[in-house]
Amino acid sequence: VAYAPTTTTRTAPRRPRDDDVNTLRLGLIGVGYWGPHYARLAAELGETQLVAACDISQDAIELIRTRYPGVRTSRDPADVIEANDVDAVIVSTPTSTHYTLSLAALEHGKHVLCEKPLAMTTGECDELIAAADRAGLVLSVGHTFIFNPGIRMMRELIADGEVGRVLYCHTIRTGLGPIRTDVNALWDLAPHDLSILFYLIDSNPVAALATGQAFLRKGFEDVAFLHVDFESGAMGAAHVSWLDPHKVRRVTVVGDRRMIVFDDVEPVEKVKVFDRGASYEATSDEGRGADFEYFKALIRDGDIYAPKVPGTEPLRVQLAHFADCCLHGAVPEADGASARRVVSLLETATASLRAGGMPMPLEPAPLGR
Amino acid sequence: VAYAPTTTTRTAPRRPRDDDVNTLRLGLIGVGYWGPHYARLAAELGETQLVAACDISQDAIELIRTRYPGVRTSRDPADVIEANDVDAVIVSTPTSTHYTLSLAALEHGKHVLCEKPLAMTTGECDELIAAADRAGLVLSVGHTFIFNPGIRMMRELIADGEVGRVLYCHTIRTGLGPIRTDVNALWDLAPHDLSILFYLIDSNPVAALATGQAFLRKGFEDVAFLHVDFESGAMGAAHVSWLDPHKVRRVTVVGDRRMIVFDDVEPVEKVKVFDRGASYEATSDEGRGADFEYFKALIRDGDIYAPKVPGTEPLRVQLAHFADCCLHGAVPEADGASARRVVSLLETATASLRAGGMPMPLEPAPLGR
Amino acid sequence: VAYAPTTTTRTAPRRPRDDDVNTLRLGLIGVGYWGPHYARLAAELGETQLVAACDISQDAIELIRTRYPGVRTSRDPADVIEANDVDAVIVSTPTSTHYTLSLAALEHGKHVLCEKPLAMTTGECDELIAAADRAGLVLSVGHTFIFNPGIRMMRELIADGEVGRVLYCHTIRTGLGPIRTDVNALWDLAPHDLSILFYLIDSNPVAALATGQAFLRKGFEDVAFLHVDFESGAMGAAHVSWLDPHKVRRVTVVGDRRMIVFDDVEPVEKVKVFDRGASYEATSDEGRGADFEYFKALIRDGDIYAPKVPGTEPLRVQLAHFADCCLHGAVPEADGASARRVVSLLETATASLRAGGMPMPLEPAPLGR
Amino acid sequence: VAYAPTTTTRTAPRRPRDDDVNTLRLGLIGVGYWGPHYARLAAELGETQLVAACDISQDAIELIRTRYPGVRTSRDPADVIEANDVDAVIVSTPTSTHYTLSLAALEHGKHVLCEKPLAMTTGECDELIAAADRAGLVLSVGHTFIFNPGIRMMRELIADGEVGRVLYCHTIRTGLGPIRTDVNALWDLAPHDLSILFYLIDSNPVAALATGQAFLRKGFEDVAFLHVDFESGAMGAAHVSWLDPHKVRRVTVVGDRRMIVFDDVEPVEKVKVFDRGASYEATSDEGRGADFEYFKALIRDGDIYAPKVPGTEPLRVQLAHFADCCLHGAVPEADGASARRVVSLLETATASLRAGGMPMPLEPAPLGR
Repeated sequence: VAYAPTTTTRTAPRRPRDDDVNTLRLGLIGVGYWGPHYARLAAELGETQLVAACDISQDAIELIRTRYPGVRTSRDPADVIEANDVDAVIVSTPTSTHYTLSLAALEHGKHVLCEKPLAMTTGECDELIAAADRAGLVLSVGHTFIFNPGIRMMRELIADGEVGRVLYCHTIRTGLGPIRTDVNALWDLAPHDLSILFYLIDSNPVAALATGQAFLRKGFEDVAFLHVDFESGAMGAAHVSWLDPHKVRRVTVVGDRRMIVFDDVEPVEKVKVFDRGASYEATSDEGRGADFEYFKALIRDGDIYAPKVPGTEPLRVQLAHFADCCLHGAVPEADGASARRVVSLLETATASLRAGGMPMPLEPAPLGR
Repeated sequence: VAYAPTTTTRTAPRRPRDDDVNTLRLGLIGVGYWGPHYARLAAELGETQLVAACDISQDAIELIRTRYPGVRTSRDPADVIEANDVDAVIVSTPTSTHYTLSLAALEHGKHVLCEKPLAMTTGECDELIAAADRAGLVLSVGHTFIFNPGIRMMRELIADGEVGRVLYCHTIRTGLGPIRTDVNALWDLAPHDLSILFYLIDSNPVAALATGQAFLRKGFEDVAFLHVDFESGAMGAAHVSWLDPHKVRRVTVVGDRRMIVFDDVEPVEKVKVFDRGASYEATSDEGRGADFEYFKALIRDGDIYAPKVPGTEPLRVQLAHFADCCLHGAVPEADGASARRVVSLLETATASLRAGGMPMPLEPAPLGR
Repeated sequence: VAYAPTTTTRTAPRRPRDDDVNTLRLGLIGVGYWGPHYARLAAELGETQLVAACDISQDAIELIRTRYPGVRTSRDPADVIEANDVDAVIVSTPTSTHYTLSLAALEHGKHVLCEKPLAMTTGECDELIAAADRAGLVLSVGHTFIFNPGIRMMRELIADGEVGRVLYCHTIRTGLGPIRTDVNALWDLAPHDLSILFYLIDSNPVAALATGQAFLRKGFEDVAFLHVDFESGAMGAAHVSWLDPHKVRRVTVVGDRRMIVFDDVEPVEKVKVFDRGASYEATSDEGRGADFEYFKALIRDGDIYAPKVPGTEPLRVQLAHFADCCLHGAVPEADGASARRVVSLLETATASLRAGGMPMPLEPAPLGR
Repeated sequence: VAYAPTTTTRTAPRRPRDDDVNTLRLGLIGVGYWGPHYARLAAELGETQLVAACDISQDAIELIRTRYPGVRTSRDPADVIEANDVDAVIVSTPTSTHYTLSLAALEHGKHVLCEKPLAMTTGECDELIAAADRAGLVLSVGHTFIFNPGIRMMRELIADGEVGRVLYCHTIRTGLGPIRTDVNALWDLAPHDLSILFYLIDSNPVAALATGQAFLRKGFEDVAFLHVDFESGAMGAAHVSWLDPHKVRRVTVVGDRRMIVFDDVEPVEKVKVFDRGASYEATSDEGRGADFEYFKALIRDGDIYAPKVPGTEPLRVQLAHFADCCLHGAVPEADGASARRVVSLLETATASLRAGGMPMPLEPAPLGR
């Protein structure tokens, strides 16, 4: 999906609307994996309406035509980006095209919801953030998991003090495929995990490293391990692989009071709270004659609780929230700054990966951004 | 279990035996977690006999007395090490005591089977290897997993070419406790994983790094991630934690033909062979207008096969093999050299851990060692 | 969905078509649970087209209107049944209405695909079969599981002799809800299981009994156990419940060579072949002094194999097959006779249930029907 | 293990003891599956001491000799039953010998703990109960599951009102083997389930039926389904099979407030409380035009809670309790009356099984028995 603008002069911003200001008219670029879901949700939600969609694949276009005869289709993203009956554009294309398409959309006065990661460099993120700010447009990124009811429940459990101080958060995202051709597994999969880490750990990252290897194609790591140190002393770790026999989607948070686990593969008990913990106790049993026994470990292995997690579809919540931001001025939960934070960490992680796993400091950034 | 020899002169090597040279008379130092199992197996196996046992805990001694009234008990390891009716000593004590006790036993002419890791430094390993060599004694380390029928089946599957070239091997060993007081989780848990990596990947390690953190007690990491690069290009990774709500014991081997998984928590299907794989294919579809699409990923997602794994108890095989080495001159599968290789990697990993995850080169060592 | 014909004279059969005889124009009655899926598949399949849909619920109608603007909607089934641009009707309503709606559709010259069970009595089934025969129309029942790739694979494994002689087939279909208001759990859930039993056991049922109880509402059993004896000596058993905390969807076939299990809840290994079996062997060890030991049981506990099951959606195969029958004269795999066989067994089972579980003989019926 | 008394005159009751009346001297008949566990526990518990053991198998005798050199062994049960230093006999032999051995032991003045089922007929149970009563001896049966901490927790949850009124209790006990040669799967496996049903459902059984089939050997059913109606309206159901690929050990209790499940195969979450339920609600929505819609089903699908179940070994609790009864006059939880209740139901179930599943009334019996 290369974007080649049809005109050199910028088209006017979207058509002024006197009629129905409560409907967000959407354009969809990319009808691959997520695209059809966005199309369905646009039809199902009350405040959204899909008016145009494009993809380079004729099959993808046919799919839209068959299911949604009223939607204009095209193989050219310009037809979506420049359409003056489109208020907002969903960019759901391969990662390497996100920046160009999002920028063009913003420049044509469209709000943007772009799949993760927002761009390939923090510089590109900054440009997009600036463009959105200048034009007063919403820029949002598809960090879907922060709209996942299970992850939200975890954040509440942490906020309520159920977990105590967060010691570490470990995520696993493995399975066989889908395998991308334009980015490695780190850039493809880890944005989800980083958005989760940032959502659950209320602290700034200070250092990171990544290891991994490219087995199938030179330069494109299939497996990666990511380690992040936070200012608070908490540790984050992510394991991503698209070359693994087991499909695992798990987030483990260990606190000093309890442990919680989110398992997205589990059909019923998606969030589990383990009333478990451990601590050392100094002992005065010096008579045992060995100095290694001055400490005794105490284990608390208690009940397990699986609170009912609502079955809400995260993508639906995400799109509804985006519409709310565009139509009613709500503040995006996954804004350009969050997107930049994830991309910044990916940049550092990639540098570390290229340097054989060398740990790298992270530039300090205000949390609020 | 501090060892303070009762005599300054070395006692004579074990009593010459005209009577029953086909029974290995065992002394057991440490009746904590594994000790009682060794005691039971010594009673069950045909060629072994437990004659003496010691532990600093009176409860542990009572346990032996109740179950095996014929076994001499003591709180002093010297009573085992210096007994002249003991042919071989099993060292099943906290890690920090392994070196001293094993060395004393070798110096008193006893064969030694020591729990993993054999020692805290490669220097100590070298001393023990030298002591055993000098005295013509067997020195073996409790790398139990290489006697596990599931792990052995994996090695056979690899040797038979079922897996193809081994791309990576990933192990997870997590759960809540037991928590040691003399070593961190890396030294406590990872020796198993490293012995498995070395057993399954037929190549020399060239670099390693480790990350982790000490949450419960300063200086004792509860969670660690280990990364090892092998000469062959294969990657090894291990995740160990004794502060995790889920008990996981899993070894995943990804080859370029198939993937195999060993899951020790699974009661029935302990080894699974996944007829799965992926590859890239160059495409000539240049008409698609985007250079990121020159490659297409192909996924093969086929049958899964769980061969019947014999239910043999690994510790029993290990002890029977040790007896075979001591009595009949069999070559130890887990000898001093294997023990050293594991300790060497742990040393490097610890250095990396202390340096914030800095990748470290490994000294080249002949595989055969 | 009470059917009250709008005219007393029968409308003419569906409009003769010169144009596109390769498209089956569908009418859908009932847009509850399965209805929306039929609507989606009608849009996705090449040979089908949904032209009209009805439901008593306005919400259901809205759903169709939003997603498929081109489909006529109505609250009156007559608008579907009597439409002359409808070739075939899908009856996807509560069980108690199946007979009336299907009969009306057949009488208006429409092919019928009716959800299971086809009717509440064998007499009604006979009427529907006769009506379809008279008019030369296709009458098919929604025994979806015989289009499930996992169940089909089981049948092939049996046909190939992998399983040996089928000794018994046991099905479990439990969970919490959905709870029907017009039929009990036996009539709601067991049709699936009975269609599976008949599909996998190639023999006539000769006797049946059912036990169960109505806990929530008098006269509507929430839990039932069904037992069927087959002529071949094979046994069938089904456990259904809509008042159970665990969602289970499992079919176990035990043969005298191997055992196979279909587990529809399992995301990956849906079919498993267990190379397991047992047999008795006469022993001559009479010296043991006890006559109960003349026989010795031998257990064979071998490998487990999970063949890759295609991810095909059963409902899609079912609808495509129905279209093939209507358009090209293919013979329905789930025809009126299969539907009758299931209803006949349900009738007998209900009689048994009402008689406290009394075993009841079944009328002999040629298998071919 | 046929019992042929060595003397015709009854030996005197066990030796009077002035010395250590706080130790129960045990004799063990049968060292097959459970026997070795009883021997181990007798050694581990404070109040018990194994003095004699017998088995017809020389291997079994060797096992006892090796592990417990101080215990007298024999191939003749008389050596245990008639020994005057034995206070109590554990009968751990094939079912068909339970009655003869237990009676002989009682007649020789020994307390008896007999594996389940106590006998093959209620008449035999009555004789044993009378013999024990006459001699003032303890007669206890190995209903191990009522000493299982998970099952005890379920009973407490029911007693505390957590579950509400118990609607039904369903047990599954399947797997491949062990296969008995003297009784069928019903008599071998269902005693456990019946003891659980009686323990959890506080009501008298009024009717029962059983279906099943003998596939491997004529007359010995490998698979059976049992249905029990209780006076309270509760339903009990048990599925047992020793010819099934899946090992399942599950007890499901559905109450009108909550549902609880005990899963003995699950390593951690053995008991789960499901805050789930369903009910019908009369609706007044008569305008919907269909009489089947006067009721609406309401589903409550809430949290799941897995209370920590202590890891206590049930057999240990059972043996300690037996010792407490023999030594200190505690009232046996699993006495002759409980044993008789289980055997009585098995008798009725067998009659039903032989009659093709005919439901059979049960003789009324006071619960207290």
